[in-house]
Amino acid sequence: MFTLSQKNFRAPTTCLGPTCTQDMDSSHGDDLEGECSRKLDQKLPGVGDPAMLSSDTSYLSSRGRMIKWFWDLAEEGYRTYHMDEYDEDKNPSGIINFGTSENKLCFDLLSRRLSQSDMQWVEPSLLQYPDWRGHLFLREEVAKFLTFYCKSPVPLRPENVVVLNGGASLFSALATVLCEVGEAFLIPTPYYGAITQHVCLYGNVRLAYVYLDSEVTGLDTRPFQLTVEKLEMALREAYAEGVKVKGLILINPQNPLGDVYSPEELQEYLVFAKRHKLHVIVDEVYMLSVFEESVGYRSVLSLERLPDPQRTHVMWATSKDFGMSGLRFATLYTENQDVATAVASLCRYHGLSGLVQYQMAQLLRDRDWINRVYLPENYARLKAAHTYVSEELRALGIPFLNRGAGFFIWVDLRKYLPKGTFEEEMLLWRRFLDNKVLLSFGKAFECKEPGWFRFVFSDQAHRLRLGMQRVRQVLAGKSQVAEDPSSSQTQEPSDQHR
Amino acid sequence: MFTLSQKNFRAPTTCLGPTCTQDMDSSHGDDLEGECSRKLDQKLPGVGDPAMLSSDTSYLSSRGRMIKWFWDLAEEGYRTYHMDEYDEDKNPSGIINFGTSENKLCFDLLSRRLSQSDMQWVEPSLLQYPDWRGHLFLREEVAKFLTFYCKSPVPLRPENVVVLNGGASLFSALATVLCEVGEAFLIPTPYYGAITQHVCLYGNVRLAYVYLDSEVTGLDTRPFQLTVEKLEMALREAYAEGVKVKGLILINPQNPLGDVYSPEELQEYLVFAKRHKLHVIVDEVYMLSVFEESVGYRSVLSLERLPDPQRTHVMWATSKDFGMSGLRFATLYTENQDVATAVASLCRYHGLSGLVQYQMAQLLRDRDWINRVYLPENYARLKAAHTYVSEELRALGIPFLNRGAGFFIWVDLRKYLPKGTFEEEMLLWRRFLDNKVLLSFGKAFECKEPGWFRFVFSDQAHRLRLGMQRVRQVLAGKSQVAEDPSSSQTQEPSDQHR
Repeated sequence: MFTLSQKNFRAPTTCLGPTCTQDMDSSHGDDLEGECSRKLDQKLPGVGDPAMLSSDTSYLSSRGRMIKWFWDLAEEGYRTYHMDEYDEDKNPSGIINFGTSENKLCFDLLSRRLSQSDMQWVEPSLLQYPDWRGHLFLREEVAKFLTFYCKSPVPLRPENVVVLNGGASLFSALATVLCEVGEAFLIPTPYYGAITQHVCLYGNVRLAYVYLDSEVTGLDTRPFQLTVEKLEMALREAYAEGVKVKGLILINPQNPLGDVYSPEELQEYLVFAKRHKLHVIVDEVYMLSVFEESVGYRSVLSLERLPDPQRTHVMWATSKDFGMSGLRFATLYTENQDVATAVASLCRYHGLSGLVQYQMAQLLRDRDWINRVYLPENYARLKAAHTYVSEELRALGIPFLNRGAGFFIWVDLRKYLPKGTFEEEMLLWRRFLDNKVLLSFGKAFECKEPGWFRFVFSDQAHRLRLGMQRVRQVLAGKSQVAEDPSSSQTQEPSDQHR
Repeated sequence: MFTLSQKNFRAPTTCLGPTCTQDMDSSHGDDLEGECSRKLDQKLPGVGDPAMLSSDTSYLSSRGRMIKWFWDLAEEGYRTYHMDEYDEDKNPSGIINFGTSENKLCFDLLSRRLSQSDMQWVEPSLLQYPDWRGHLFLREEVAKFLTFYCKSPVPLRPENVVVLNGGASLFSALATVLCEVGEAFLIPTPYYGAITQHVCLYGNVRLAYVYLDSEVTGLDTRPFQLTVEKLEMALREAYAEGVKVKGLILINPQNPLGDVYSPEELQEYLVFAKRHKLHVIVDEVYMLSVFEESVGYRSVLSLERLPDPQRTHVMWATSKDFGMSGLRFATLYTENQDVATAVASLCRYHGLSGLVQYQMAQLLRDRDWINRVYLPENYARLKAAHTYVSEELRALGIPFLNRGAGFFIWVDLRKYLPKGTFEEEMLLWRRFLDNKVLLSFGKAFECKEPGWFRFVFSDQAHRLRLGMQRVRQVLAGKSQVAEDPSSSQTQEPSDQHR
């Protein structure tokens, strides 16, 4: 569970926490975390590598160095992209970004709505210290919004809502208040890999993987199918390794699979969690980005009865469904008032501006605009973009997954890896980047099968066309840029798959 | 250093961290923090008290319970206030708030400025994932702003700026990246007590107090004078107790004293820090709230040369100087790129909306409005309010401190405590509250002398008049509300002194 098959692969796969901080500087004499480190003694390749750390970081604590290391790792890859971003007019030969999961299809609609005069309101209470749970007027709107769009059988309540500045913050706060240092959440893989940092950087919480694969066998009805048997097995393995598991993270709709759990599946996972007294964090950040109605997406809040409501915590945000990752707005919905209060106490560090709280309340209450303007247009544009990329892939004979949710297609490029290793996955990724298209490789999502890539399709048609053209060139072995052996040794980004 | 003189006093005085989390639930079998707890074994009164914890908090981790406990403690006192807030029309007999350090004098100017059309700008880049250090256009404005208002001898640089959602977040991030668990910052007392939580809740960092007193003796030139001798002594004491000190926190202008450090004093403290390789966090959040020009305030960034620039980190925010604590905007200025990068990496959890970043850039670049409209009017209003409260106190024969900076007067009510204990300080505080005026008591700032109170004066004249009238009544022994022995047992708020 905590090992990597590729020795030279440097991306962290579990929370490094105290383990790595000790490894990173064995000369740190007064090591207060020694006991934790000894308990969590699994080695992570690369982490103890002195070359990883620049010598001038002695100003930082060992955990500060670990935090900076995550940044450097991500920056390494992103720097290439940001230094050479595609621009239709100014840099037409720049890099096309199929890596970052942002919806760039509806900025016109959003800009128009957010520029309306009802968004600009300044009153003293918005400029004073806030209620750290969020202003009541906003939590009331969030409760109504979730009741409607999650199809809750009962009205959801404002007192169960906490608002904060993004899903990353919510993962950080929940990990900290639910787990001790070194404890873990189960998470099925492949998964949105940034969660590793979110639960680890502040909270020192780790992830215990439930490895899924693409093979369809036995009771599994589709590739990467999560089953209770696999959850049970991962839980047993974690305990056997001395890791205490405190909860389960479910992403629904799933990132990077573009899949959704049926109500029956959800129910099974929740019953499993209840049986083991595990908290369940249900990340529904793509819930309004299900562009195929036939998929039959159901929010966990639509269930008639939650098996363990005091341990079920639901996340939602505007970053994906309203294409506003830069707005920094997320919500927690939990019936557990202790959890809500503890998260709110940490909201001193995750608070958002009163002016933004006002704007978000205005947006969420504008049901007319959401239902008649935004959602239909957004679905149509997502569907068209998805159709285009899907058809391109089909024409190339490349298998892929996506049932009609999210911004991405999970693409099987295994046949392009001669030996099927993660090194080869990385080489292919670099060939794409050298040919000016940024993708996300499966290892960043802790996929156990080398050769899967995530293609983000929620972008303008001309960029999709150009990007797919470059993808075709690479796969046909006709990269524009000659392959340079030295370039493939550049460190890969861990954060590219936001 | 880590003890409390009053056994029944429940407000935490140092980072509770692993110590209290273990104390709070000794049945937590798999205690990964055991080693830390044993190392940090000082007992905190009240923390291990089972009555403090409700039995239904078993859903939380031990650190989650500690975090919630801080909230409950603060809420207990604030609930009284929020249930009975003064309103001129609707609740004229409600509680007047002299406790929260907010500037309520300039909402008219701010509302007008923030409502102007140049503030409303929505473009795609503001709605996309941000640079976690802050958008470059904003960091450029912050650098120019600080260069001008801090009177820097050289232009300050955007690459040394990190922006985030408030000073609380900045304390949390700096503590985490500079210190290991259980390490400490020196801080002179009395100090803005919320810093205890900011460095502790996520970072598990504690404060080591440099106790100052009001007596003017020897080399001390004024009450609560900080000297290098006292810093040296506190550092020795901390080491003697086995606590590793990583830095020094200086608040300038000082909260709650309303005092400022001279350039010579600043220089001495910085040289002391350099000698011991200590980081210095200089909190200048009140730097533009110095309403007496004769005070001669100088920012640390105005010094010709910093003794140890790689270990000097400067904080500023709009919460106090622009009366916008609800806007959540703060900045770090540091030449140390490792520190800047590590803090930026944590800004995933402290990010602020792109729309707010745009607004703040607009505000900070509007030098004309700041210099000709806002600052002169703000100074005049602060000065008038300060003069009114000062004269009231003089008429009552009550000693106080404030040299002309900040929103508060540090008031010596020791003669009203018959025995000079913190219990009596608390009783007097409660008499004020019972007579409908909320103040902050000295213990919340870790003042070592019982009987000091902080009066926030940055409020409208009619509220100041009514508040002072009620204060007079209490001091004359004529409280409107009869003293009820049971009421004095209510738990005090730890967070009332924001």
